[in-house]
Amino acid sequence: MATRSFAEPLNSLINELSKLPGIGGKSAQRLAFYMLSMEERDAEAIAEAILEARRTMQRCPVCGDLTDSEICGVCADAARDRSVICVVENPRDVAAFERMKGYTGLYHVLHGAISPMDGIGPDDIGIRQLLIRLQQSDEVKEIILATNPSIEGEATAMYAAKLIKPAGIRVTRIAHGIPVGGELEYADDVTLSKAMEGRRDL
Amino acid sequence: MATRSFAEPLNSLINELSKLPGIGGKSAQRLAFYMLSMEERDAEAIAEAILEARRTMQRCPVCGDLTDSEICGVCADAARDRSVICVVENPRDVAAFERMKGYTGLYHVLHGAISPMDGIGPDDIGIRQLLIRLQQSDEVKEIILATNPSIEGEATAMYAAKLIKPAGIRVTRIAHGIPVGGELEYADDVTLSKAMEGRRDL
Repeated sequence: MATRSFAEPLNSLINELSKLPGIGGKSAQRLAFYMLSMEERDAEAIAEAILEARRTMQRCPVCGDLTDSEICGVCADAARDRSVICVVENPRDVAAFERMKGYTGLYHVLHGAISPMDGIGPDDIGIRQLLIRLQQSDEVKEIILATNPSIEGEATAMYAAKLIKPAGIRVTRIAHGIPVGGELEYADDVTLSKAMEGRRDL
Repeated sequence: MATRSFAEPLNSLINELSKLPGIGGKSAQRLAFYMLSMEERDAEAIAEAILEARRTMQRCPVCGDLTDSEICGVCADAARDRSVICVVENPRDVAAFERMKGYTGLYHVLHGAISPMDGIGPDDIGIRQLLIRLQQSDEVKEIILATNPSIEGEATAMYAAKLIKPAGIRVTRIAHGIPVGGELEYADDVTLSKAMEGRRDL
């Protein structure tokens, strides 16, 4: 999208915004103009919030989730069940499980999934940290692999399972099937086939 | 949308982003996490671009368009036709006309439209500046009213026309009708009726 007709600082802002996921050229333009039209302090608040979040948020050294403390809230919470670790691809997945409530165990955030196509191998995500974590604690009884049901997520789950099982720890995979409220006829083939595979006795 | 499960700096970033137009709670979350996962300098570049644009971009004292110079590129361009002024609601409209090319006159940006429902009267937008501009120059032969074809835009055009016409300046309104490439059957009633009203002899 040509943005030639704008002055350089506006052009540059549009350019930066359009690098964000889901923000195309048109949206970036609309956002940039909005940022110039809003109250000075409101625009500054956005910039400050970005810088502040980058300055203070870091990965929890235990589980890899994002936190502004030395250790994240879940890892620091003595009430959490230390015998279960739910392995997820990214911090948003932790947020999803925490919204659900009900899960009282710990997490491990891999920050990605194995994807040879993108040049992402096991060492590029937090699998090694997970193994070290398991070696350092004998409390863990179950690892729940909750990576996405994509090719990359499945490959990551398979890889992790192969490494963890020999240690005698129970390794499970979250169920995939028809979403609650979803209709069979609109389910894609893979989901349907997962739903059949995962069927349980009533 | 509950964002309780996040640390405060992340929460605050999500909150600031969700104030932007077209960015809902879910998108704000996705953007915030993305900003935390990208390279430090790329995230800083966004914040810097916002601050820099706010610092350097201002309204052109002549036409009201956004510029990083003392006077905007169009107003400063000696090759532009100073006898025509196209009146628009906001800087994005100027950008649209400039993309179209072909228009060689000047602009006047109102920064809004009259909207009694929102408490926006003639004095809250740049109509007075337009009148002063007309008084200070006797070069202007035509004012093209290119405010939006909305209730507010129409009211603004009517109001401006009433004030400008007595000065003996030609006042025109851009045409409204079926967009080129659009199909009659999908046009709304108002557009259809505008297309009929604006019909021309062949």
